[in-house]
Amino acid sequence: MLTKPSALSRLVGELKKLPGVGERTALRLAFHLLKTPQNLTALSESLLEVKSRVRSCSICFAITEDDPCAICAGDRDTGTICVVENSQDLMALERSNAYHGTYHVLEGVISPLAGIGPSELRIAELLARIGRGGVDEVVIATNFTVEGEATALYLAKLLKPLGIRISRLAHGIPLGSDIEYVDAATVQWALQGRNQL
Amino acid sequence: MLTKPSALSRLVGELKKLPGVGERTALRLAFHLLKTPQNLTALSESLLEVKSRVRSCSICFAITEDDPCAICAGDRDTGTICVVENSQDLMALERSNAYHGTYHVLEGVISPLAGIGPSELRIAELLARIGRGGVDEVVIATNFTVEGEATALYLAKLLKPLGIRISRLAHGIPLGSDIEYVDAATVQWALQGRNQL
Repeated sequence: MLTKPSALSRLVGELKKLPGVGERTALRLAFHLLKTPQNLTALSESLLEVKSRVRSCSICFAITEDDPCAICAGDRDTGTICVVENSQDLMALERSNAYHGTYHVLEGVISPLAGIGPSELRIAELLARIGRGGVDEVVIATNFTVEGEATALYLAKLLKPLGIRISRLAHGIPLGSDIEYVDAATVQWALQGRNQL
Repeated sequence: MLTKPSALSRLVGELKKLPGVGERTALRLAFHLLKTPQNLTALSESLLEVKSRVRSCSICFAITEDDPCAICAGDRDTGTICVVENSQDLMALERSNAYHGTYHVLEGVISPLAGIGPSELRIAELLARIGRGGVDEVVIATNFTVEGEATALYLAKLLKPLGIRISRLAHGIPLGSDIEYVDAATVQWALQGRNQL
């Protein structure tokens, strides 16, 4: 039986490490790249470029090419810090165009099962930022998962004694959704958080 | 709004060129790679390695690192040539372990809509191989699509006058499938090609 060329096997092996990519998909991607050598080179180069140029912002730990990042270096409201789990969540919040403060990326969540405690996250750096003064409010925007909620609770308890306002993103019915199909816990939150018109 | 670092944008752009990868998947893959720098380097290197080392076999046009490929250089039955559309199909036939002859990769199919005629395929090279003598049979294993069937028909007409046996892979019910759910055309082929027990 013909064995795949070893260079191709290695490429397939590397592609299989990507999330959601199995043997068949990896093989399909590899053959696609083989057919378009210019894309292959461009992909290889952009991978190395990302590795060499993308780093964490030394203030907020968002991924960036320039340090400090565009948000920390810009004219944003430094009195408000929005705490997020990772840079993807930060980008989602930025897409909303509704937040004008700065961010703080935790680079993870408290997860005892995965052996990640508060000391593995950027919490000490957050405290240091608040310690330097000028912060009125911390918006906790960790995800609404068990780990995200636990992290939010931990942060709230930790920051409360500092006398700054601590808030959390609102729970409720997502836009465009049918109440009939929304889970009971979300409906409960939406009722409790109802707004007067 | 925060714009993505430009190196990351470029990587996302390159990943989006892959089949089945959209903006969201590309972003997810890029962030995954950012978190695992050793995978990022390995992927980049294996892409370049594939580009520099993988080529077409000068006899059968299968992808290979050595020229001629392991099949053409091996002790296979050179009297039988199996004609396939591409190297992926060749690998599928090899996985069956049922074929012991050599191959010929057309590198495509006749497709007037895509502007691909017989001269764009490796048909001249196939004729040259047959012309050198010693070939008793050509097994046409193009896919059972409109283009694949048209190519098979074209090849059959072209090769018939050379006085060699021309065959085509059998149509029929796939193993493990329920006749109830097999399409009518396949059932028709299976009936016409029924074997005596």
